[in-house]
Amino acid sequence: MSVRIFATPQDAEAAFYEALEHADLEAMMAVWAEDEEIVCVHPTGPRLAGLAEVRASWERIFAGGTDTRVQITHKVEMTGMMLAVNSVHENFSVPGGERPPAPVVATNVYLRSAAGWRMIVHHASPAPGPAAPGSDAPKILH
Amino acid sequence: MSVRIFATPQDAEAAFYEALEHADLEAMMAVWAEDEEIVCVHPTGPRLAGLAEVRASWERIFAGGTDTRVQITHKVEMTGMMLAVNSVHENFSVPGGERPPAPVVATNVYLRSAAGWRMIVHHASPAPGPAAPGSDAPKILH
Repeated sequence: MSVRIFATPQDAEAAFYEALEHADLEAMMAVWAEDEEIVCVHPTGPRLAGLAEVRASWERIFAGGTDTRVQITHKVEMTGMMLAVNSVHENFSVPGGERPPAPVVATNVYLRSAAGWRMIVHHASPAPGPAAPGSDAPKILH
Repeated sequence: MSVRIFATPQDAEAAFYEALEHADLEAMMAVWAEDEEIVCVHPTGPRLAGLAEVRASWERIFAGGTDTRVQITHKVEMTGMMLAVNSVHENFSVPGGERPPAPVVATNVYLRSAAGWRMIVHHASPAPGPAAPGSDAPKILH
């Protein structure tokens, strides 16, 4: 089990995406806070709450393979003393894929604990793809 | 223009959903921080950043009508000195509708400013509907 201490929210975020790319469950769970309520929403998925649900979800996802690359762009950072929020675009690429898919929009929240900064919220949802020429604007549901 | 001061993140959140129910654009924008980077993701939508994009999106949404009720459930609160995060289920009901649709999952982030607590992030995505009997689990994309 990793015992890495993340000195900043950005260190924790880098470790999160590194674990995601390598499908490394222990490295992934080392990023999450252990003694807090945590929340995770995967793209098109339900809200998962608590360590057991979150861990099980990553275990299922990582069972699918390891060959993922994700580039983070459009980062907006909001950092307080105890909580930090990053809004990012996750750009996944599949080796050999013809063109990049639409990005995933993610809101990541980190909490400063005695063990450094840890993730407490990951909320990801697919961004709409580029509109076809002449098509209407994306429908907004609420 | 409203000049309400929200003493707590929960006050700001109550005002946010009240403005949403009443399709009140000025009340909605009075909840958002004015001098910070703000981020808004509507269900199935792209990430919007900055006051102009966020305001325009609510203006479009509110142009569609005012007869909305939303009940907030499953709230998880994480509150710091300067930042607060709420994870909720938004349960929309349509008058005369036969059965409630699946909830929307929302992550709401508030910042304590000189003018009280204001929203800086609203990230909403549709939760999957109840699975049909015998169907597979919802697909997870990453």
